[in-house]
Amino acid sequence: MAEHTVKAFDEDITRLRGLVAEMGGLAELSVAEAMDALVTGNQDLADGVIARDKRIDQLEGEVDRLSVRVLALRAPMADDLREVIAALKIAGVIERIGDYAKNIAKRVGHIEGRKRFEPLTLLPVMNELAGDMVHDVLTAYAARDPIAASEIVKRDAKVDAFYDSVFRNFVSYMVENPATISSVAQLMFVARNIERIGDHATNIAEMVYYAATGTYLPERDDVIPPA
Amino acid sequence: MAEHTVKAFDEDITRLRGLVAEMGGLAELSVAEAMDALVTGNQDLADGVIARDKRIDQLEGEVDRLSVRVLALRAPMADDLREVIAALKIAGVIERIGDYAKNIAKRVGHIEGRKRFEPLTLLPVMNELAGDMVHDVLTAYAARDPIAASEIVKRDAKVDAFYDSVFRNFVSYMVENPATISSVAQLMFVARNIERIGDHATNIAEMVYYAATGTYLPERDDVIPPA
Repeated sequence: MAEHTVKAFDEDITRLRGLVAEMGGLAELSVAEAMDALVTGNQDLADGVIARDKRIDQLEGEVDRLSVRVLALRAPMADDLREVIAALKIAGVIERIGDYAKNIAKRVGHIEGRKRFEPLTLLPVMNELAGDMVHDVLTAYAARDPIAASEIVKRDAKVDAFYDSVFRNFVSYMVENPATISSVAQLMFVARNIERIGDHATNIAEMVYYAATGTYLPERDDVIPPA
Repeated sequence: MAEHTVKAFDEDITRLRGLVAEMGGLAELSVAEAMDALVTGNQDLADGVIARDKRIDQLEGEVDRLSVRVLALRAPMADDLREVIAALKIAGVIERIGDYAKNIAKRVGHIEGRKRFEPLTLLPVMNELAGDMVHDVLTAYAARDPIAASEIVKRDAKVDAFYDSVFRNFVSYMVENPATISSVAQLMFVARNIERIGDHATNIAEMVYYAATGTYLPERDDVIPPA
């Protein structure tokens, strides 16, 4: 590429990475706040998470449009092309993490007898595990660090195991407390959403690895507990 | 583009569309077979769905690699660029539909007392609605038909309403039949997976529309019932 094109390309990439980082920061915040809202019953906080999802969706649209423009105008090669493709795909995954957080926030009004509701106490730790994966994979993306990314992939098994245990616990709780079935059913979906957030952090880690190295991490077998 | 490049590009696009169509056909088959396996308790059929998911994942990898190669070697513009980006994104969505079908198949061994199990009888119709959306959106993709694609988007509300009703029914059933809670909890996730399959058919429809017209369908507000 000519020098001025290289400069313009670098500016585009910086902007693209900035948009992805902004999306990621918002999604990370939503994951944490959705759980806070669920535990405390804070509807305003939940509404904030739901509203923020629109902004995340808009940012994804911006990433899509800018990626297509960069591909069209600059026709990048090799590393640069991988960088653009990775941004495009990572933005899609962050958008889904935002959706999961929104989905958790939407359940806030559907939990009855929140105080001393044992099933609810199991979820914050699980959420923190998944939220930390999201945080760390965004850091790995910002640092273009494939080693850090590959470490994050390994942590997903812990979230999956947690989910498995929570699912069994919830079933037992419903059997013993039929009056709470509707609320616990809501929490089952919350647990599942958290488990999926961990999966998606893993997906991002795989793309960070690919963008940085041009090779794929060895395929992992998806654990979809408990079925 | 020079004439030989145009020809090579057309061949690449034909191959790309062929891969996406193949993925779509496999995913559609999995959606139907997963429900059959669930209703009949046919574990072999379920295992086939689970095995097929690996093939779908492989095909997605092929679409990714070919897309990147086409972008790198041919640097397509305008319509052609949209075509490649749409194939890349649609492949990602079909892969997720395959995952949902696999997830349903994995629950086949976890349903007790399958015969005359009322909650199970609600799901095939819902699955057919979502499966038809998948089938029709693939047809719209093959025909590059934005009008057909936009019609499919409207049908998702019906799947969402069905899900909402199924969810309430399942909660009532669990309250009245605590011994079945574990099985019904599995079916709740199945219902949710079907609802997501409808969402993803909608996502594909939006991309078909974009690829064909260069403009976006008006934003719809995601219904995430029942929370």
